[in-house]
Amino acid sequence: MTGPLRIAHVGSVATSIPPDKSGSVELMTSLLTEGLVARGHDVTLFATGTSKTTARLHAIYPRGYWEDTSMWPWELCEMFNLAAAVERAAAFDIIHFEAAYYPMALAFSRLSQTPIVQTLHHSPSADEIALWSQYPEAPFVAISREQARLLSGLNVVATVLHGIDTGAFTFREQPEDYLLFLGRFTDGKGVLQAIDAAKRAGLRLILAAAEDEYYHAKVAPLVDGRQIVYAGEVDHAGKVALLGGARALVYPVQSGEPFGLVLAEAMACGTPVAALDRGAVREVVEDGVTGLVFSTLDDLVAGLPRVFALDRALVHAAAVQRFGVVRMVDGYIDAYRRVVGTHGARTGRSGS
Amino acid sequence: MTGPLRIAHVGSVATSIPPDKSGSVELMTSLLTEGLVARGHDVTLFATGTSKTTARLHAIYPRGYWEDTSMWPWELCEMFNLAAAVERAAAFDIIHFEAAYYPMALAFSRLSQTPIVQTLHHSPSADEIALWSQYPEAPFVAISREQARLLSGLNVVATVLHGIDTGAFTFREQPEDYLLFLGRFTDGKGVLQAIDAAKRAGLRLILAAAEDEYYHAKVAPLVDGRQIVYAGEVDHAGKVALLGGARALVYPVQSGEPFGLVLAEAMACGTPVAALDRGAVREVVEDGVTGLVFSTLDDLVAGLPRVFALDRALVHAAAVQRFGVVRMVDGYIDAYRRVVGTHGARTGRSGS
Repeated sequence: MTGPLRIAHVGSVATSIPPDKSGSVELMTSLLTEGLVARGHDVTLFATGTSKTTARLHAIYPRGYWEDTSMWPWELCEMFNLAAAVERAAAFDIIHFEAAYYPMALAFSRLSQTPIVQTLHHSPSADEIALWSQYPEAPFVAISREQARLLSGLNVVATVLHGIDTGAFTFREQPEDYLLFLGRFTDGKGVLQAIDAAKRAGLRLILAAAEDEYYHAKVAPLVDGRQIVYAGEVDHAGKVALLGGARALVYPVQSGEPFGLVLAEAMACGTPVAALDRGAVREVVEDGVTGLVFSTLDDLVAGLPRVFALDRALVHAAAVQRFGVVRMVDGYIDAYRRVVGTHGARTGRSGS
Repeated sequence: MTGPLRIAHVGSVATSIPPDKSGSVELMTSLLTEGLVARGHDVTLFATGTSKTTARLHAIYPRGYWEDTSMWPWELCEMFNLAAAVERAAAFDIIHFEAAYYPMALAFSRLSQTPIVQTLHHSPSADEIALWSQYPEAPFVAISREQARLLSGLNVVATVLHGIDTGAFTFREQPEDYLLFLGRFTDGKGVLQAIDAAKRAGLRLILAAAEDEYYHAKVAPLVDGRQIVYAGEVDHAGKVALLGGARALVYPVQSGEPFGLVLAEAMACGTPVAALDRGAVREVVEDGVTGLVFSTLDDLVAGLPRVFALDRALVHAAAVQRFGVVRMVDGYIDAYRRVVGTHGARTGRSGS
């Protein structure tokens, strides 16, 4: 089939799509939905009533379980939202489940007359893969080759890097004089390494993330308000301002992440990144163009001048080209058509 | 249909069915499965490979997630186990899901060609009922009238009190001279009230339950080893010995529970109970025959001599009659036939 697809896009029901505040999964879900509609597909978004979309909205909950603590356990809410789509499977060519936490759609995959494809938003462990391998035929879209590698043994039909709304990130030719760390305060994100790097380089570092226990226990004692500055949690406008003003985004990530949205967002502002080589970093950062990827923190500290020397206009242009929504939407449409075709061939259905 | 039923009995995959140690839900699941097989029904038990049953065993996991921490999250394991039954729905007349934690089978109920009936093992909150009411037609079996009342607005097709293996609880005509508290150490179970009652009555009290934080914080300081004695966590033989030797089981429960298996177990040993009037207590205790039900702790303390005066042989006989497995099995068979009949009428299927 080559015409418009009838797509059930099942988002999380934690909060609205797109989210009011933070929620990168919910933001990506929204970008994909709107992009699919813009390309003429017939999209039904299964999400909370607070969601805003040009697709048809199917909402079994007025709001999300982040806002309404009576909606408990959250797993059941996500299950009911997914079930609402599967119960209407005949109306769709494909069901796309954005598994924010785990791929519960596997349990529904053999009960649906319409194929269900899933996107994961974390790096699965070997134990998880062993568990999920009860359903080796169920299709996944990976968000990086790194995640696809971890999904080994499962049916990865495509790898589609996330897109961002590049127009929402203002290009800044001339930065101010600071490094930026933007992300949750965890060991995995490497905030302590970022502080260490800034101190050793004798540079100013701004930290932006929500205040939490980790912040109070481990980060706050290192914040002096002069060289190491804490800016709190920022909204979108604040994020764009901080990203654009940074000489570089410092990303000394310690655990392997399947993507790294903040890398693409920094680049879209023209800001190069100084990153450690973990997880999907090499797939998101074009080494030598949009940033530099280092093996060790020592190398990163020593390499900062070379990061600053990268051409911010080229960083911006590369980000727009690689992380535009259109490319992501194209990737998903290809993946959908592949899954629908395979499913039609397997079941003898025409697929439309 | 009146002949044998083809039953998929979906147990929890937390541990084996029956459980090696504690696990009242798993024990009840086993008793029902074996009882159904004994009555000539064609039963497939969906449970761990460690389970022991005369039914056909369908095991997608060699052992349970209480034993194997790599099986995470547990919700997904339970979902896959349930899905394994629903994927084979055509082979069954009825699927019975023993929802140990929450009724996830609701999400599968409209995707299954065979009706799914669920047993809950807790007292649902009003918030839970509001959430579950997305599926007002999905059939439940309540384990007490009290639980049926809480399930208001949902489709409760029958109320079937739990059965116990009465033969496994030895009748003791002559008890020793102590009261017994047997249950988890929580505010809801009323262990502190049990200690208070024993002290005020000047009687010895034995406490039996697993040592935990609550025990160390609140119970241990009250244990003197003479009047208030802690016996630790006991296995089945230890439980039977402690129950049979008690003059009375003290059950000053504070939160409403949907059943109270230990009440039936005490009675089966001939031991009367002194209970507070909460939840399903009045349905399990035959007031004036197998125990006495009090409104307040003061009344309970004052009423202990009357509890001791109850005829232990009559207590035992009443327990055997009311909580035998056969009665429970009959109740479930009736419920299954009702659900199958309704489903057949609704879908135009013959139901067999």
